[in-house]
Amino acid sequence: MTSSEPTFVVGIDLGGTKMLAAVVDSHGQISGRSKRKSLPKSDRQAAPDIVAERMARTVRDAVDKAGLTMADIAGIGASAPGPVNVDMGRVYRVVNLPKWDTYFDLGPVLSEYLGVPVYVDNDVTLGTLGEATYGAAKGLDDVIGIFVGTGIGAGIILDGKLRHGFRWGAGEIGHMLNYHGTIKDIEHFASRGAISRKMREAVAKGKSSIVADILTTRGDDRITSGVIRDALAAGDTVTQSIVADAQQGLGLLIASVVNLLDPQCIVMGGGLVESLGDRFLEPVRDIAFEHFFLKDDADKIMIVPAALGDDAVALGGAVLARQRGGG
Amino acid sequence: MTSSEPTFVVGIDLGGTKMLAAVVDSHGQISGRSKRKSLPKSDRQAAPDIVAERMARTVRDAVDKAGLTMADIAGIGASAPGPVNVDMGRVYRVVNLPKWDTYFDLGPVLSEYLGVPVYVDNDVTLGTLGEATYGAAKGLDDVIGIFVGTGIGAGIILDGKLRHGFRWGAGEIGHMLNYHGTIKDIEHFASRGAISRKMREAVAKGKSSIVADILTTRGDDRITSGVIRDALAAGDTVTQSIVADAQQGLGLLIASVVNLLDPQCIVMGGGLVESLGDRFLEPVRDIAFEHFFLKDDADKIMIVPAALGDDAVALGGAVLARQRGGG
Repeated sequence: MTSSEPTFVVGIDLGGTKMLAAVVDSHGQISGRSKRKSLPKSDRQAAPDIVAERMARTVRDAVDKAGLTMADIAGIGASAPGPVNVDMGRVYRVVNLPKWDTYFDLGPVLSEYLGVPVYVDNDVTLGTLGEATYGAAKGLDDVIGIFVGTGIGAGIILDGKLRHGFRWGAGEIGHMLNYHGTIKDIEHFASRGAISRKMREAVAKGKSSIVADILTTRGDDRITSGVIRDALAAGDTVTQSIVADAQQGLGLLIASVVNLLDPQCIVMGGGLVESLGDRFLEPVRDIAFEHFFLKDDADKIMIVPAALGDDAVALGGAVLARQRGGG
Repeated sequence: MTSSEPTFVVGIDLGGTKMLAAVVDSHGQISGRSKRKSLPKSDRQAAPDIVAERMARTVRDAVDKAGLTMADIAGIGASAPGPVNVDMGRVYRVVNLPKWDTYFDLGPVLSEYLGVPVYVDNDVTLGTLGEATYGAAKGLDDVIGIFVGTGIGAGIILDGKLRHGFRWGAGEIGHMLNYHGTIKDIEHFASRGAISRKMREAVAKGKSSIVADILTTRGDDRITSGVIRDALAAGDTVTQSIVADAQQGLGLLIASVVNLLDPQCIVMGGGLVESLGDRFLEPVRDIAFEHFFLKDDADKIMIVPAALGDDAVALGGAVLARQRGGG
């Protein structure tokens, strides 16, 4: 050991499709990054240890690109898209990776590969931690991040403390329930997945030719956030109505969470929000504020779009490494 | 000052109708108690300072009954049925006391009257703190208390810390929202108030003669928890159906909160739960467990009835005084 302590950390964002590693300096600036598919092309059924080995290589690549060596790295914070036992660095399962159907001690395994401490947390939690440290909620310690995608997940920071839950299961905000006759998860109404499903149904019934045209032009039948954006831009009334339903659902979801927990700041992220921007968020915000039970100081509650885009989770990982391991 | 430090504390439960002060020893045992109407008979419009003066007298009476003097009291924890700024001991308002329509610094005023430190918190929060210290969730530090009455309120303790909220507004669980066509607060479906309202409507429509008979026999047309209990005991199918709806609402509410926050223990309190007991809670529990998103270790989540009855809030006040002030 020389006299200089390592001052960089690495954050890893592991997704179902790809992974990102980012080397982050003490000011939160990214000095180098590297991406890789989560699974090798040759083995779409690869086990967690193969994924972990790829994560280790991605970290080494990012460190290399930053012009550093592993000796410059004080610690690593890695995310997983599933429930995580943070104390053990154990990922219980990753629904989007076929063989990750039982627990895997990602933290210890990565730490063994890379020779530095590795801390692991849920991806939505780390995305929220990233936004609360460097992004839309910078400097705030009372933040709920709501990330809207296929489903809806939340990261929870209350009074400066990450909320993981007694069974490491907190944050499943999309599985809060709504009922009136039939019982449905909130994400059945309010997610990008819900919007896509309803748009697909509308196309199948011949209700929206604009969406059909957009899909034909794109040569891809997936209804992505981009397709939703384009359909709205083209003035498609069917899409407008479906999106308005989701906006109402999200607004009421935010109001429910505010009435229960009264957080200082709600950060809204995910592809849909990032693609549609403030135009999408404005009615969500209006509906939420309208349904706050406590009206006092309602204008002090922030409902803001995420600011860090695809880097949020990796930056949150870097914050985790710094909080837990120093550096 | 003598060499012996005071070892007793006092908890005060202020309600819209009556107040209770309890002197509590270091083992959580009540050594003396006193009750008083919250408002003087002669002045149903009394201002907060009159109420505070009555609280001070009630404390002195309870101390007297315990065979002690104020010199034996290390501190006081007082509740208020409304939002409280805990740092300042300020009660923003008490809906059930007509003149308490603006803020009043209850902590400092009581402390001035009584010559000991006085800490103030919301009644539902203190009821939950009482249950988590001496009652149904004894020794647990991850507890949500849900108290079902005219409305539904929650006390929140996560990882050992009381959650008050950025605007001191957390815990309004009855004002979480449910929607499908029309938007309604949860308590519109699931509270004792909702059950009473629907039963009254049924009686008005001539649908339930049993309930009408019970009210006539009692000589009181209020549909209390006792009336609901008696109607169920008499096998009234209309009441059974109305109560089953509330049980479903409460079960889904618990599942929603577990999916969001994953707490270790849910304590269910309030007159309805206490009056109907485990018979009422059993289906609530079944519906809740059925809708947990994370199934792992679901059996480790406790859903239990409150154990301290009418003493919960005052005991919670005593815990607050001890936590904040020592003694």
